[in-house]
Amino acid sequence: MNAPDPHTPLAHALLAQSREPFPASRKVHATGMQPGVSVPMREIALTNGERVTVYDTSGPYSDPTAAIDVTRGLPDVRGPWIAARGDTETYTGRTRQALDDGVKHEARDATRIEALRASAAGLQRTPRRARSGSNVTQMHYARRGIVTPEMEYVAVRENGKREWMAEYLADAGREARLRGNPMGARIPETITPAFVRDEVARGRAIIPANINHPEVEPMAIGRNFLVKVNANIGNSAVTSSIEEEVDKLVWAIRWGADNVMDLSTGHNIHTTRDWIVRNSPVPIGTVPIYQALEKVGGVAEDLTWAIFRDTLIEQAEQGVDYFTIHAGLRLPFVHLTANRRTGIVSRGGSIMAKWCISHHQESFLYTHFEEICEIMKAYDVSFSLGDGLRPGSAADANDEAQFAELKTLGELTQIAWKHDVQTMIEGPGHVPMHLIQANMDEQLKHCHEAPFYTLGPLTIDIAPGYDHIASAIGAAMIGWMGTAMLCYVTPKEHLGLPDRDDVKQGLIAYKIAAHAADIAKGHPGARARDDAMSKARFEFRWHDQFNLGLDPDTARDFHDETLPKDSSKEAHFCSMCGPKFCSMKITQDVRDFAERGMADKSAEFKAAGGEFYVPVDALSRKG
Amino acid sequence: MNAPDPHTPLAHALLAQSREPFPASRKVHATGMQPGVSVPMREIALTNGERVTVYDTSGPYSDPTAAIDVTRGLPDVRGPWIAARGDTETYTGRTRQALDDGVKHEARDATRIEALRASAAGLQRTPRRARSGSNVTQMHYARRGIVTPEMEYVAVRENGKREWMAEYLADAGREARLRGNPMGARIPETITPAFVRDEVARGRAIIPANINHPEVEPMAIGRNFLVKVNANIGNSAVTSSIEEEVDKLVWAIRWGADNVMDLSTGHNIHTTRDWIVRNSPVPIGTVPIYQALEKVGGVAEDLTWAIFRDTLIEQAEQGVDYFTIHAGLRLPFVHLTANRRTGIVSRGGSIMAKWCISHHQESFLYTHFEEICEIMKAYDVSFSLGDGLRPGSAADANDEAQFAELKTLGELTQIAWKHDVQTMIEGPGHVPMHLIQANMDEQLKHCHEAPFYTLGPLTIDIAPGYDHIASAIGAAMIGWMGTAMLCYVTPKEHLGLPDRDDVKQGLIAYKIAAHAADIAKGHPGARARDDAMSKARFEFRWHDQFNLGLDPDTARDFHDETLPKDSSKEAHFCSMCGPKFCSMKITQDVRDFAERGMADKSAEFKAAGGEFYVPVDALSRKG
Repeated sequence: MNAPDPHTPLAHALLAQSREPFPASRKVHATGMQPGVSVPMREIALTNGERVTVYDTSGPYSDPTAAIDVTRGLPDVRGPWIAARGDTETYTGRTRQALDDGVKHEARDATRIEALRASAAGLQRTPRRARSGSNVTQMHYARRGIVTPEMEYVAVRENGKREWMAEYLADAGREARLRGNPMGARIPETITPAFVRDEVARGRAIIPANINHPEVEPMAIGRNFLVKVNANIGNSAVTSSIEEEVDKLVWAIRWGADNVMDLSTGHNIHTTRDWIVRNSPVPIGTVPIYQALEKVGGVAEDLTWAIFRDTLIEQAEQGVDYFTIHAGLRLPFVHLTANRRTGIVSRGGSIMAKWCISHHQESFLYTHFEEICEIMKAYDVSFSLGDGLRPGSAADANDEAQFAELKTLGELTQIAWKHDVQTMIEGPGHVPMHLIQANMDEQLKHCHEAPFYTLGPLTIDIAPGYDHIASAIGAAMIGWMGTAMLCYVTPKEHLGLPDRDDVKQGLIAYKIAAHAADIAKGHPGARARDDAMSKARFEFRWHDQFNLGLDPDTARDFHDETLPKDSSKEAHFCSMCGPKFCSMKITQDVRDFAERGMADKSAEFKAAGGEFYVPVDALSRKG
Repeated sequence: MNAPDPHTPLAHALLAQSREPFPASRKVHATGMQPGVSVPMREIALTNGERVTVYDTSGPYSDPTAAIDVTRGLPDVRGPWIAARGDTETYTGRTRQALDDGVKHEARDATRIEALRASAAGLQRTPRRARSGSNVTQMHYARRGIVTPEMEYVAVRENGKREWMAEYLADAGREARLRGNPMGARIPETITPAFVRDEVARGRAIIPANINHPEVEPMAIGRNFLVKVNANIGNSAVTSSIEEEVDKLVWAIRWGADNVMDLSTGHNIHTTRDWIVRNSPVPIGTVPIYQALEKVGGVAEDLTWAIFRDTLIEQAEQGVDYFTIHAGLRLPFVHLTANRRTGIVSRGGSIMAKWCISHHQESFLYTHFEEICEIMKAYDVSFSLGDGLRPGSAADANDEAQFAELKTLGELTQIAWKHDVQTMIEGPGHVPMHLIQANMDEQLKHCHEAPFYTLGPLTIDIAPGYDHIASAIGAAMIGWMGTAMLCYVTPKEHLGLPDRDDVKQGLIAYKIAAHAADIAKGHPGARARDDAMSKARFEFRWHDQFNLGLDPDTARDFHDETLPKDSSKEAHFCSMCGPKFCSMKITQDVRDFAERGMADKSAEFKAAGGEFYVPVDALSRKG
């Protein structure tokens, strides 16, 4: 047995790479009224003196001045707020069990796991829960009229810094076509803390923020906020170090993951989760049935409510911010999948279907739903009600099974809201374009505007290796229509486990989809970064074009393949056409022409000479 | 000076790679009633004995039995049809000029160019044109009620082989949700030759097929047909061999380009075009103003109608199938771009804007439009009316300049149709999602359903390096709404010249978009390949999944990264979960359960044992 080393050279190098600040960027903060509300943003310095600030999911990692020690975890953002509310208490917590970190029926290397745990002893926190009779959810506070620091944090974060956007916001003020079509969303010009509170109270938004995850930088998921993106990570087959596991998280948030789901299975899942939650500035979601299944040796029929309940408490104490719970997959719905082309494709769904038909009983998740609510509200864990019957192919999209479950999720939402438990709804999956709107309509109708959280959807089935693209199409559309968070798909979907580059590719495709949705919905300020980019493009400020992009490194590399000399990045010409052409010149001609109207100035123009130009957009295209 | 070698080792190796048949695939043909109508398709043999045939753009190159000699060109598909109509004549053609192959003001290596020409002497064809008083366009024949072999070819091609689809078509027969939403398209269950004729007569579809391009395998562009994809290629800075230039074409059609535009500039453009047209089974489009501009040394103001007209005839004699002509950019519209964020970004548009304001005259393309029609109908060159004022940023989308030009394109369409000249309309560009529908609506309204041919559109501006994705979103949507052909965007858009892999990435993104549109529109048979894929997925037929995909090699490679052993591809388990789990097993459980209804069979199920499964869709995702 090798004692695990939290600082393997490879893991250390990877984490260093994931922490590197983006070019020309620095961490800035915008503050709120309440103590401790200091919202990090990324400021990009342009070569023309403009400063562009953008939403920043990367946490302290991208701040080179932050001292990061993965064996101790991130600084505590929310601790004082939680303590100040006075409605929680620390307690000894559930007793750790041998099963928590591994499967039942295999001989495990207890020594090794103990060593892993010991290496992260600094991460152990005393758990906290609601005092008896208290409800500590953000929804509960909101419904009592309280604007929590978390809500104010979200408001500041959603608005961004409006100062630099003034020029671009004015365009939208003048031109209706630039204001978007909200498709039923009601997004105010400025997000106030009270607006956040009202949206949370109404159930139209959630702020996933377990009281045992004080490290989180609060964020909101809701149709009247920016569209968010989730990335999934899982533990390695053989977990070797904290840094390696934490790096997956840091890499994902570097590329824009607003949430991360830990879908670990097998060995060391409890300990790995400790590492991830303690080092995560973004909300962490899990599918607790995965761990429960490990505890019964992978035999779905052997699952019990007691084991599942214990697992919920275990994970709630660790600080998981939301649980995917497939409580809408009821016994009577199972037979609806019999004639599907691809049956049941949700892992959690298949576990529960197997359990239901083996016992010929209603799902214990459904029958114990109110008990689950009691646990959720003691820690402020949010529901992500799982779509166990989502379609696994276009052929099964929008079928009876899918919508029967969706209606049940709506009923469960009402029950969760009765307990003031924050709730979002998971959605498909595989849906051709013409059926996407119906998914959104049905969800809004039956689930009462609880935030929708979809996987894609994939619009076609024949693109293995490119499903991030096939699904980004559906994701952008459903995001525009009102979906609040998009679960990413990587190029490896249907084929294998995503590696580091796949995670990045999946995230960028989904940041594109989410941003396209924000612009189409008309989120105030969403267009400003695009406008700054267009201006940089028109003025041939190449460095600014790279740095305003979602992936500056790749943009710069692609440019340099054609025209590597650094000086060319300052030049007023495009990489295809060379210095002979100048877009600025003809534009000045056009502007002069427009000013002087239709008077005959042709001789003057001709005398002025000037070069023909080829514009920036003509690189790989017609016309 | 080095004499150019038509068979450089690198070019030869590339071309061989581009010709390699797809795995488990062979070329088959479906025949029509008229002589010579033999439509190639790709048949994929599945491991379960099914045969799936798919639309095949790759021409003879993917047939290992075809003898390809790039110095002699492809076999003649349409020659007998053209001759049999008896309305054309061969003639000596325009006299070649020194300017045809290079720019005006530079000393050129005449010897080198002569050697290039000589190496392709076998490609020279005697040009053909309409006899005096004849009109040889497919539209003209269609309007006289004639079903040409080209039209029948298109009908057979669009239908595909329906035999193997029966199982999947039956699904759509039962379930309305699988039939798509045509958004105003009227796609019959079966495309008949008469339907093709009627669509061409109506102007709602075009069959780009210059009488001097008999090598073309006819295809149609129209909203009631499959959505098509165009790829752009350009000559190398230093053209070295025929094979190198032809390989770009062959590589593009391998990955699904239905049309290719040759956007070459600079040296050797005439000779390079000979190489490309003679070796192309797909229609070739050009932007003749590019070559005309080279002839006047790159000075837009020096362009004349005479030089442009001569260039049209030069290219029509070579066999170019459609010309992008920016005749809608009129003098009065130029000033409308003065306050744009990104001015004029079309290369052709900027040339004409410069010409108009320099001379203070109406565009010669507009004033000579009927004369251009006379040339088009003598060779059956189709119009691709260019959108010189398309937006170069989301900020400029759907503005006055863009729509003023679009209306003019509609007027010009009516004039072209008066001459029975086939016409399509180019569209943007950069359009956020909420403005896409208006583009389609305005185009349909003003251009009378002439086929729309859009570049993307890009839905956001901040994704340099990933604009193939940002634009595939818009392309899929506008394709669903009625756009007939999508001009691809590569990852290098805005940054540099696409290399071989960029071309492939761009094409696959656009095949995804086009296919998503076909499925959403409900094109009969479009879903069948997806259904075959879903069935293969559900049955863990890994080889079939790879081979049914748009890029079998990449799918296989991605799979093998996780589970490289060949035997695993036959196994009934997914690469993440390993052999312990089996999707088939639980599905059988569910089906048994459904058959036996709600009777209490739980004891029996439990006694039967069986493993829990993890489904195919759970690889990189939640839930």
